[in-house]
Amino acid sequence: MMDTQLVLTGFLKRAQRYFPNKQIISRTSPTMTHRIPFKDYVKRTHRLADALTKLGMKRGTKVGTFAWNHHRHLEAYFAIPCSGAILHTINIRLAPEHIIYIINHAEDEILLIDGDLFPLVEPALGHLKTVKHIIVMSDDPVAPSSSFPNVYSYEQLLQEADENFEFPADLEENMQAGMCYTSATTGMPKGVIYTHRSIVLHSLALGLAESFALKESDIALPVVPMFHVNAWGFPFAALNFGANIVLPGPMMTPSLILDLIEQEKVTITAGVPTIWLGALAEQEKQTRDLSTIRLIISGGSASPKGLIQAYNEKLGVPYVNAYGMTETSPLVSMSHPTTEMNSYTDDEMLNIRVTQGLTVSLIETEVINEKGPVPWDGETMGELRVRGPWIVSEYYKDDRTNEAFRDGWLYTGDIAVLTKEGYIKITDRTKDLIKSGGEWISSVDLENALMSHPDVFEAAVIAVPHPKWQERPLACVVLKENAHATKEELLQFIEQDFAKWWLPDDIVFLKEIPKTSVGKFLKAKLREELKDYEVQTS
Amino acid sequence: MMDTQLVLTGFLKRAQRYFPNKQIISRTSPTMTHRIPFKDYVKRTHRLADALTKLGMKRGTKVGTFAWNHHRHLEAYFAIPCSGAILHTINIRLAPEHIIYIINHAEDEILLIDGDLFPLVEPALGHLKTVKHIIVMSDDPVAPSSSFPNVYSYEQLLQEADENFEFPADLEENMQAGMCYTSATTGMPKGVIYTHRSIVLHSLALGLAESFALKESDIALPVVPMFHVNAWGFPFAALNFGANIVLPGPMMTPSLILDLIEQEKVTITAGVPTIWLGALAEQEKQTRDLSTIRLIISGGSASPKGLIQAYNEKLGVPYVNAYGMTETSPLVSMSHPTTEMNSYTDDEMLNIRVTQGLTVSLIETEVINEKGPVPWDGETMGELRVRGPWIVSEYYKDDRTNEAFRDGWLYTGDIAVLTKEGYIKITDRTKDLIKSGGEWISSVDLENALMSHPDVFEAAVIAVPHPKWQERPLACVVLKENAHATKEELLQFIEQDFAKWWLPDDIVFLKEIPKTSVGKFLKAKLREELKDYEVQTS
Repeated sequence: MMDTQLVLTGFLKRAQRYFPNKQIISRTSPTMTHRIPFKDYVKRTHRLADALTKLGMKRGTKVGTFAWNHHRHLEAYFAIPCSGAILHTINIRLAPEHIIYIINHAEDEILLIDGDLFPLVEPALGHLKTVKHIIVMSDDPVAPSSSFPNVYSYEQLLQEADENFEFPADLEENMQAGMCYTSATTGMPKGVIYTHRSIVLHSLALGLAESFALKESDIALPVVPMFHVNAWGFPFAALNFGANIVLPGPMMTPSLILDLIEQEKVTITAGVPTIWLGALAEQEKQTRDLSTIRLIISGGSASPKGLIQAYNEKLGVPYVNAYGMTETSPLVSMSHPTTEMNSYTDDEMLNIRVTQGLTVSLIETEVINEKGPVPWDGETMGELRVRGPWIVSEYYKDDRTNEAFRDGWLYTGDIAVLTKEGYIKITDRTKDLIKSGGEWISSVDLENALMSHPDVFEAAVIAVPHPKWQERPLACVVLKENAHATKEELLQFIEQDFAKWWLPDDIVFLKEIPKTSVGKFLKAKLREELKDYEVQTS
Repeated sequence: MMDTQLVLTGFLKRAQRYFPNKQIISRTSPTMTHRIPFKDYVKRTHRLADALTKLGMKRGTKVGTFAWNHHRHLEAYFAIPCSGAILHTINIRLAPEHIIYIINHAEDEILLIDGDLFPLVEPALGHLKTVKHIIVMSDDPVAPSSSFPNVYSYEQLLQEADENFEFPADLEENMQAGMCYTSATTGMPKGVIYTHRSIVLHSLALGLAESFALKESDIALPVVPMFHVNAWGFPFAALNFGANIVLPGPMMTPSLILDLIEQEKVTITAGVPTIWLGALAEQEKQTRDLSTIRLIISGGSASPKGLIQAYNEKLGVPYVNAYGMTETSPLVSMSHPTTEMNSYTDDEMLNIRVTQGLTVSLIETEVINEKGPVPWDGETMGELRVRGPWIVSEYYKDDRTNEAFRDGWLYTGDIAVLTKEGYIKITDRTKDLIKSGGEWISSVDLENALMSHPDVFEAAVIAVPHPKWQERPLACVVLKENAHATKEELLQFIEQDFAKWWLPDDIVFLKEIPKTSVGKFLKAKLREELKDYEVQTS
């Protein structure tokens, strides 16, 4: 057999050869879009590789990007790994001390920074220990003035570079290609490294009919940042399959996202539930044509039933859950129904759609507790563990590796049950699980039930200490504008779905739920704020 | 990154874990079908592996199969490679001396033979040098009597075997998994070896939306034998994706195939054009419900325009060409149109559908002649060369490796042009090309034109020696029943499509075109028979 290496250079060649006129469409301002066909994109990518090489980029050099979703960032996505260097996408929403930490920890030597984000980073530059060059990405052919010695204009560097630059032909598939840090509950963010092989195989997985079914006729809009798990792999896969790719830039508000879907006739899009909650509310205010969409993929946290129902039934737009994390590239599972469910009632089907779904090809999952793998009963909780060719095996130079990676598996820290069909249903994070009198209560199940109430915008359920039961659930609820549901009404609304001892002991009403940089509920903060909350009853 | 090995054992586990109730449906006689759910299939596969291991199968042992398409053959498809041994599928249609040659050349130690094929093989058994055990596959729990010492009943062996047999957990992806011999124009058949990795990646490719889009909801009917290039990879992929698989046994007549499609509600099927020509004629005689079919894949040789038109337009069944060969696992390209063609006229679209299509992900192709890669002009011919992770790099212990494998490419021996869209259009085999006065004439183009005449059933165009032009085209035509087209009518029918010097010098009418064991035109035989044919004109 030929020992063809699974490297990203093949994707770039394919895009250039077979899909020269397919487009990368970037939102550059609320009213402007930038369009570039693959053929020109590929030329610019070669120029960028040439420019970076002239600045000293070598095999294994870490090059950081600090940028929104746009064509220049996408140029970096291929120019860096196809040269044998490592693309380190930096989460721009992290706290400054975390940003400084990860750039130093990764030992980035070159940084690519968005022009409008540069002022944000400027004050931190003095703390960076390994960065030698900074390239500012904007239309401006002149670099901004800075106290940092080597700051360049991206466009000027590209102008001076060679579009006939040749990528090395001898890359090996196990070479490091990408890097991403994920925030930790405590301590500094943890880094993971993707390889050419892992990215190529993960990209193929996005083309499978059983998962995203990405293909040439698609117009793909990742509403998930390119600085977070490679925008779930869309940028790489879209180039390979020849799909148009729509990049929203910094404009991720529900209204602008819906406009973009309508204008660009988007066929497939993906984002966190918060985005889709917002978009639903916006769509109810002002209707856009969403008929081109064949698939909305929701991941990052659980989607409430009502949200799934609203898209699938009210808007007639297929809305499917996916599950994954930074450590898993991210795709692990998807909640597409199987033919077995053809005879299911709407309710039964909704119970499937609300899960994190069936494990995709090449990936193995197990849910285990102290007794071993849990039965497929939809009830017994355990920790989800994952392995496969795009699951990382360690945190980069980090002792926390030992907690998460054991016996050849990644322990996800997610508590799950398996439905009778083998679908994964996340019920909690290990750390968010409520342990009441020796039994486990799922905060996520309670949240979903609360969020299906028409008056509830968001709900987070946390454990608060209890003298008798060790922990008891406390619900934090954000009501919709002008909604007035009371604690009693909400408790009554959910009581038929749960054992009595599962019900929250109290409900506090908040203006908003604190969130992480990627839009997930920040329960650690809620727990900290409410740790002295005195539960009223039991 | 985890170094998860891409091995077939993962497919079997996935089938067992997630799709226990999906089915393997085998035609055992024109009126009988055998059904087995994946969960029982997997148990039997473990039993078979145990039985073979007890007979001495070790890592690297070659186990030959001599069988039609059915569930027992499919059991062998996984039991052998998942044990670390090599599945050698033997083409039952080869001449006896070729069959003896390949079994000896491969050094098969165990043979699995269909009960009804056993009498065919019996006389050859004395010539086999390495075979120690023969297992006869049929319902009969008693082995047939034979002069060969170790002949067993498959069912009896399975009964005595352990369904808890454990497949080795330490297989590596580059281990040999399968083996197939392909007939050569001259000399003995040439063998190729597939690895676990090549089969896993090729199977994934069949699940891509851009190619077969195989998925759980499919009911897949490969009308291509399991002894020929692993039935194009369907058996492996179907198990992984959880698709029902329908195996036609020896019953590959158009009428029985159409019955099977209707009865089993087949959604995807694949075979050579000869099958689809026959099925079209049969469907015109007696209409079956083909509405469940979402894709017919045709490959192995070129489909005439009229055939493609009849399926896509008259029957309303999507009919798409694919291209590949034994050496390529086989999938290389498919003729799905792209969005660029949305504005094409019906004629332009048909010109796309008639090609061998666009190269699939991970595979690279080039068409080259003495001047280098040919332009995308639809005219300039060159030889197609291919490389990628499921393209073999040599013939097994065979000097002919040096002809076909050069500079890291497989030279296919197929002459092709590239359309302006980059679609591969095979115009000939290197050996069938007609070289007239220093110019190349494509026999396939002429054949397709002739076969689009309503009276023509089949047409083969060959080169005959010519004193002045070196070679000239001669057309061999089989008319449909009760059709009467004359030489003059046929030449007039095609003359507007070709330069005058391309037109065949003569047409001979035959009762049938000789074919290879896999249904391709055997032009070498025609050339031999007609080598002294005296061309009438020019």
